[in-house]
Amino acid sequence: MTPMVIAMPGNEQLADELASLLSLERVTALVRRFPDGESHVRVEQAVAGRQAFIVCTLDRPDDKLVPCSCWPVACVSPVRTALVCGAYLAYMRQDRRFQPGETISAQHVGAWISGQFDWLVTVDPHLHRIVDLSEVYSIPSRVVHAADGVARWVQSQVRQPLLIGPDEESAQWVEDVAHRASVPSVVLTKTRRGDREVEVSVPDVQRWRTHTPVLVDDIVSTARTMVETVGHLRRAGLAAPVCVAVHAVFADNAYQDLQAAGAASIVSCDTIRHPSNRIALAADIANGVRELMS
Amino acid sequence: MTPMVIAMPGNEQLADELASLLSLERVTALVRRFPDGESHVRVEQAVAGRQAFIVCTLDRPDDKLVPCSCWPVACVSPVRTALVCGAYLAYMRQDRRFQPGETISAQHVGAWISGQFDWLVTVDPHLHRIVDLSEVYSIPSRVVHAADGVARWVQSQVRQPLLIGPDEESAQWVEDVAHRASVPSVVLTKTRRGDREVEVSVPDVQRWRTHTPVLVDDIVSTARTMVETVGHLRRAGLAAPVCVAVHAVFADNAYQDLQAAGAASIVSCDTIRHPSNRIALAADIANGVRELMS
Repeated sequence: MTPMVIAMPGNEQLADELASLLSLERVTALVRRFPDGESHVRVEQAVAGRQAFIVCTLDRPDDKLVPCSCWPVACVSPVRTALVCGAYLAYMRQDRRFQPGETISAQHVGAWISGQFDWLVTVDPHLHRIVDLSEVYSIPSRVVHAADGVARWVQSQVRQPLLIGPDEESAQWVEDVAHRASVPSVVLTKTRRGDREVEVSVPDVQRWRTHTPVLVDDIVSTARTMVETVGHLRRAGLAAPVCVAVHAVFADNAYQDLQAAGAASIVSCDTIRHPSNRIALAADIANGVRELMS
Repeated sequence: MTPMVIAMPGNEQLADELASLLSLERVTALVRRFPDGESHVRVEQAVAGRQAFIVCTLDRPDDKLVPCSCWPVACVSPVRTALVCGAYLAYMRQDRRFQPGETISAQHVGAWISGQFDWLVTVDPHLHRIVDLSEVYSIPSRVVHAADGVARWVQSQVRQPLLIGPDEESAQWVEDVAHRASVPSVVLTKTRRGDREVEVSVPDVQRWRTHTPVLVDDIVSTARTMVETVGHLRRAGLAAPVCVAVHAVFADNAYQDLQAAGAASIVSCDTIRHPSNRIALAADIANGVRELMS
């Protein structure tokens, strides 16, 4: 029987694209909130014995996780149910106990999701101290990388691009995208000038005056790093930069702050629905799903 | 070691009262949301090896369940962790599959909570087709009844009360409260006058003209039944009624609608924090906790 794709609200476009790319049936799934704030999920087609893919990005996760976890139960005895966090995977930042009495929520939520679903496909989760998803997810998982999609977009849309890494930590990721796009990259250097003062400079700055700086980050939440970096670049005399986010979380006024800071444009991958979405990752996600589907 | 009480935000008052009534230590628990919408919970005191009570009412449950479920993990190897839904227990209404493809969320959420906590104490959950909490909760549980508290309040605060049951379904509950308060009660009768018309009347209406009608319901969410019943009572020539809710969910404008319908006053138990809270159940809840604590 044809496997089916179920979209949580806001994930319809990606679900449609995946259904089309993978020849799956996109079924009508209803999700609503009762007046008392409880969720109700229902799938209209016959579902028993079919494989199901739930497409749900997990930014602002708390009120999505409960209804999302209802699907495997709604799909009466599905063969296997996959969660396609097509998409942003929540709760990856608290990956150790920084202070006593804290929850290592990456592990806790990872264990919970692993208990509800049979597989997981996601796009570039925040991996830092956790090096591999299997440390917190006991189910098979595939990590889809956005680097290729970002590189394609930079190559085709930006005139004379220069990829910028705001700090040493970002070097590896920025150089990877630069390499795929065959464009140059620089990593900003920080020089401590005293107890509180830090000078940030662009190495070899004269060489890049005619380039378009491209700032890339995986998760843009408060956008504080990007806003600061835009400032450093402008003060160094470079052109207004293009800002690229893989996951456009954009908390509170982060998007407006970044616009106000002087970004030439702000673009993002379509893992979290946002007006800045320009880089489509459906084909890359479909490849990840295909590997686990067979 | 002294067991400890942890309050989720909004549950501080009940947690303080329980700590005082049960000689428990109320510990400082921090719950905050990161800008990206993820939750962070932390308890400041030493917690290892202690019994913990999490006080958390579960109205509008979706964004409370995830941080709430973090506590047992934050409390590094607690002896036992109880959830005191002091309190409203969510997801009790969807207690069977009404249409194909639905989740029986009472069972699903019940199983999840049972996996996180060792016991459960709650106040009058919505039991209808589910007759006993043990059908959906595999952990020991105690149901605290609000009837005594409501009866005490009616007896001491309402002049010449007449308890009203809006329909046959409510008869048992209303008669129970009336019995405890030693006051009279009537149940409204519905007579069908055609395909769509239903006439609601107050039996023996002349006898009650000088009484204060008291409407009692367990969960007031949209308040539709109460608003209609207030109308029936006023049209029958009775005085403006006092409306009592055990669980003051009051979705959207339900509270304002009920005020506008002509309620003389609206009061509720303190299971969900609301301006209408007048009936304190801490002592009753403490008794429930005491039974499971030993």
